[in-house]
Amino acid sequence: MAQEDVFKKLVAHCKEYGFVFQSSEIYDGLSAVYDYGQMGVELKNNIKKYWWDSMVLLHENVVGLDSAIFMHPTIWKASGHVDAFNDPLIDNKDSKKRYRADVLIEDLMAKFETKIEKEVAKAKKRFGDAFDEAEFKSTNPRVKANQEKIDTVHQRFVDALDKNDLNELKQIILDYEIACPISGSKNWTDVRQFNLMFSTDMGSTADGSNKIYLRPETAQGIFVNYLNVQKTGRMKIPFGIAQIGKAFRNEIVARQFIFRMREFEQMEMQFFVRPGEEMKWFDKWKETRMSWHKALGFSEDKYRFHDHDKLAHYANAATDIEFKFPFGFKEVEGIHSRTDFDLNQHQDFSGKKIQYFDPELNKSYVPYVIETSIGVDRMFLQIISEAYTEEKIEKENGKVDERVVLKLPTALAPVKLAVMPLVRKDGLPEKAREIINELKFDFNCQYDEKDSIGKRYRRQDAIGTPFCVTVDHQSLEDNTVTIRHRDSMEQERVEISKLYEILKEQVSLKELFKKLK
Amino acid sequence: MAQEDVFKKLVAHCKEYGFVFQSSEIYDGLSAVYDYGQMGVELKNNIKKYWWDSMVLLHENVVGLDSAIFMHPTIWKASGHVDAFNDPLIDNKDSKKRYRADVLIEDLMAKFETKIEKEVAKAKKRFGDAFDEAEFKSTNPRVKANQEKIDTVHQRFVDALDKNDLNELKQIILDYEIACPISGSKNWTDVRQFNLMFSTDMGSTADGSNKIYLRPETAQGIFVNYLNVQKTGRMKIPFGIAQIGKAFRNEIVARQFIFRMREFEQMEMQFFVRPGEEMKWFDKWKETRMSWHKALGFSEDKYRFHDHDKLAHYANAATDIEFKFPFGFKEVEGIHSRTDFDLNQHQDFSGKKIQYFDPELNKSYVPYVIETSIGVDRMFLQIISEAYTEEKIEKENGKVDERVVLKLPTALAPVKLAVMPLVRKDGLPEKAREIINELKFDFNCQYDEKDSIGKRYRRQDAIGTPFCVTVDHQSLEDNTVTIRHRDSMEQERVEISKLYEILKEQVSLKELFKKLK
Repeated sequence: MAQEDVFKKLVAHCKEYGFVFQSSEIYDGLSAVYDYGQMGVELKNNIKKYWWDSMVLLHENVVGLDSAIFMHPTIWKASGHVDAFNDPLIDNKDSKKRYRADVLIEDLMAKFETKIEKEVAKAKKRFGDAFDEAEFKSTNPRVKANQEKIDTVHQRFVDALDKNDLNELKQIILDYEIACPISGSKNWTDVRQFNLMFSTDMGSTADGSNKIYLRPETAQGIFVNYLNVQKTGRMKIPFGIAQIGKAFRNEIVARQFIFRMREFEQMEMQFFVRPGEEMKWFDKWKETRMSWHKALGFSEDKYRFHDHDKLAHYANAATDIEFKFPFGFKEVEGIHSRTDFDLNQHQDFSGKKIQYFDPELNKSYVPYVIETSIGVDRMFLQIISEAYTEEKIEKENGKVDERVVLKLPTALAPVKLAVMPLVRKDGLPEKAREIINELKFDFNCQYDEKDSIGKRYRRQDAIGTPFCVTVDHQSLEDNTVTIRHRDSMEQERVEISKLYEILKEQVSLKELFKKLK
Repeated sequence: MAQEDVFKKLVAHCKEYGFVFQSSEIYDGLSAVYDYGQMGVELKNNIKKYWWDSMVLLHENVVGLDSAIFMHPTIWKASGHVDAFNDPLIDNKDSKKRYRADVLIEDLMAKFETKIEKEVAKAKKRFGDAFDEAEFKSTNPRVKANQEKIDTVHQRFVDALDKNDLNELKQIILDYEIACPISGSKNWTDVRQFNLMFSTDMGSTADGSNKIYLRPETAQGIFVNYLNVQKTGRMKIPFGIAQIGKAFRNEIVARQFIFRMREFEQMEMQFFVRPGEEMKWFDKWKETRMSWHKALGFSEDKYRFHDHDKLAHYANAATDIEFKFPFGFKEVEGIHSRTDFDLNQHQDFSGKKIQYFDPELNKSYVPYVIETSIGVDRMFLQIISEAYTEEKIEKENGKVDERVVLKLPTALAPVKLAVMPLVRKDGLPEKAREIINELKFDFNCQYDEKDSIGKRYRRQDAIGTPFCVTVDHQSLEDNTVTIRHRDSMEQERVEISKLYEILKEQVSLKELFKKLK
């Protein structure tokens, strides 16, 4: 099955089993905003807890913070977001639709790329085993013409972005006769810069209210609290501040389900170090963060680092941890060496001295910063798309059954245990609830008595429940139950009194933590 | 000490020990917005977990949700917030300051009240034991005059609010010559309605962007997802949907620290029931919620119900759980019988049928709703203000020492265990860290080696750490440590291997859950 189809099925599955709903769906939705349903919220909370505890509980020198979404507007001047956090936008005059100029141009290049791929596929079919792709590409005139177009556009595009030349972006669109996908017209406005921050008015005085922004990143909340946390927490460098919270970006192109949203959640940690020691810590956090991802148990070849060639104005090193989504390798986490840029800027703009006195060096300095920044929603999408599995099962009668199972890391599964009475009588429901009442303080349990046991297993597979326990008549006699394992589908008979220990060993975050470097 | 002074000290304590910072403090702050520091975020997270688990884990028929802050703007028309979520505001033309007209009038009545109290206090002093307050009030001409003023203003005020008569509100302000506290002038604009919702523009089309609102309550996110959750979760009435999340209100009068903020966090649960059964469930949830509060172990007489006389347009019963703050009894939680108002409105505005087919009754209906709504920040303030304790301790040498201790419910304390080597040598720090490494997966531990043990105890008292463990030379020999209890300050010698069990029994949420009804 094509990866695209798998992705469509995944999106449908997320809706059908209460993981992710389109926001305001009964009002026909709100673009690029999503709600997490009854299963989704549990998975999301578990991901957040895995990150938070791995940062704050496991590191003696990392503490948490929860700063507000609303911040003083000057903060976004200091950070550069007011002046430089823009997308180049262009409107089609006929459809009145707005597009990102850079995306239109990228789509153009992708179109040429597709033409090449079609030529290659055609030739491959014709020549069979004898086909030499490199040779073909370097000689076929149609391929060469398209490759030249790509190269020319790419060079002009990169130059225009470098110089922030909006007229040149428009000229590329005109030269290559890019049409609006809605109206089909080539009647374009000029390209304008459009700030990605949402703004709102905080009213308190009669002479005009305050324009404030919804934070586009949580990081600045950490920087402006650096002094407070360092002093009141008596923190010694090196130390880190971790934060989970919502951020907002008025993205024009919001695609791929929850991968890029207008309202999203970040998990960011800023680690403050001595100037000159930042590369050591950059390497250290690269390793620590990659180990956090790999501890989830997915295939190692799904991950790679992608070092940035072009660095942001505040960085002297940056890398992404990329994961192979159904739609290709994409960033899930960024690790950035942000130098002393942000603290320096806040020092300048606020007029407050932001320095650390280092008793060992006997001098004061503005600390350097290593940032680890990860999107909760992307992490959610990564995990659920990797967990989503369609399996064929051979049955005893020779027929083939199918199941969809979410092979979630057990510690992250929304429901840890489903308890099912074999029949809805003879005291079996009461016995099932007795088991739940014992375990519900420690684990998310679900009671299910409807339909055949087989159907109930499928429902639990579909939400990724690692264990199902069936209560039958024998249970009343000897206090044992059948426990069924999600991935292997194996069943075994165990004592009810052993369930707590089994669950504790198999579904607690502690087991993930033990794998961390 | 006066309650006001205690409150001031509490606010200072929250800053000094990393519980609550003013937002954007280095930029001189953002009014009525606060950040939670390294200790505050832990306490806040623990409060949220106590609520969430008590709702979702302990009730088979309550599930969670995490809907977005951004919602379709029509939702707020349906809910009534666009038309009716207003404050009556008036501007002083000289100071340019904006006020809530209702608050100015309430302050006026409070001023008359204060005059009466002063007369009473004076008379009490003069007459001593012989003083009959009721008699005095009904005869003293000055008291009577002020009481008459209060009664007149109160009647006009209530009538004006009832009729939404803004001119009459202004007239009261003019008649009683209320002056601006800043300019002292009585030069007022008209009273205008001012909507409390923050709005922002979500840009996606060229022909004007979409005006959307930051949600002023999380409840509507539950209502618009009612169908999705009910169907995909196969929920049967009665059932509930619980949610924790940020909400935003552009309050003009934001007072009392984190009690009333512009950005705040709610924990709301909507419980869907059969029409006609709502009063039974209203009573049930009143009891359940009160028991949740009382399980924290604070004095029972700090709590009371306050039934609403005047009901909101959507309610047929409503009560507040009030807690005695340092500034008096105030609402911490509301329990509301919201009827089928919200679901009906969304049915009308969205055009989607929002009904439940009840197999037992064999008919469809729009469910009725019981809501429990509590502010995380108020709960935080309630807990920390109740926990804040100043104690005098008699020392062996006869001198009196003082300590400030946060007597937090142990399960909610930010740090559960501090581990302290007696001296910074002889392998004691290593031994201390060994203990932490064993326990840190399960409990928030803090290592502290600086200053005398006494000073370290005081620091842990100030953040509410229930247990301190001191590692001394004997520990190296027999694997025992001294454990010190926060509230009693008693110390005992225990085996290191017993620490896990001691902590588990004393600091886990499970112990609170056991007390719930």
